[in-house]
Amino acid sequence: MNLKSKIREIPNWPIKDVNFKDITTLLQDKKVFRYVIDEMAKPFLNKKIDKIVAIDARGFILASPIAYKLNTGVCLVRKKGKLPYKTISATYMKEYGPDTLTIHKDTIKPGEKVLVVDDLLATGGTLGAAVKLIEKLGGKIQGISLIIDLQFLGGSQKFKKYNLHYLVSYDKE
Amino acid sequence: MNLKSKIREIPNWPIKDVNFKDITTLLQDKKVFRYVIDEMAKPFLNKKIDKIVAIDARGFILASPIAYKLNTGVCLVRKKGKLPYKTISATYMKEYGPDTLTIHKDTIKPGEKVLVVDDLLATGGTLGAAVKLIEKLGGKIQGISLIIDLQFLGGSQKFKKYNLHYLVSYDKE
Repeated sequence: MNLKSKIREIPNWPIKDVNFKDITTLLQDKKVFRYVIDEMAKPFLNKKIDKIVAIDARGFILASPIAYKLNTGVCLVRKKGKLPYKTISATYMKEYGPDTLTIHKDTIKPGEKVLVVDDLLATGGTLGAAVKLIEKLGGKIQGISLIIDLQFLGGSQKFKKYNLHYLVSYDKE
Repeated sequence: MNLKSKIREIPNWPIKDVNFKDITTLLQDKKVFRYVIDEMAKPFLNKKIDKIVAIDARGFILASPIAYKLNTGVCLVRKKGKLPYKTISATYMKEYGPDTLTIHKDTIKPGEKVLVVDDLLATGGTLGAAVKLIEKLGGKIQGISLIIDLQFLGGSQKFKKYNLHYLVSYDKE
């Protein structure tokens, strides 16, 4: 399937000169949605994953059907102030400004096998913070699964030691 | 399954005298997560649903595995400023203050059969706005599926004409 043709590009959003990749066109098409979930999950079907970590908020939409398919639990990485129980946090720079991510302290047990899921990898700030939080809790990251790698931003270089899997890649804005 | 025992209660969060229902304990347990998705989907398995509408952000986690299971697309109802394409919007009062929800104009076609999914029904402000947006686009709401109804807040009374399905109900704070 030519996935790029299913992703809508929005020029100058959310800021000038950014060509935003809108995945809602992909989600709302049942055949494309199913294909994306199956392809994102495929390399991890026999990896005995315990938990899928879902990154707030578009990551939630992709992580939970993969969890359902792989028969695992779902753990949330959320923006500061959104998780009600005891958390640890990591602050980082993302493409459009600084941000803080948090995770519940009890959501991953030491040694559990974790797959991290998000929609898109840009500079890797968000994903890097999520990885840090998971490893701080003792989770063993078995892979990272994404729809899109914005290869021209170089973020994927930071995650070479992990099993990084994505479905489409863009080499320019 | 005694689902209430799997939901963590957080006293005085996000504001005083609210006994917040934390579903992260339910999501991170693979058996409970699977049970919840299966039970939320069950009444709608043979309803020929075209689209699941997912409400930002906890609704995303529940809506997308139901969409995967029912073989439908996923449409997002998001807070203002989050959707990049042409939207329509609805402003409403929610439990802790005013808010505006938006939906992409092209995400539901007139006549499509829609199931609305969220985690919890409180006063019904969020859900009411989502219903309004879906109907404005011509979507035919076949049902609403939730984990929790806070029955003592009376929100569910507003949705009697829809096929409202929830797994647990609380009769006091």
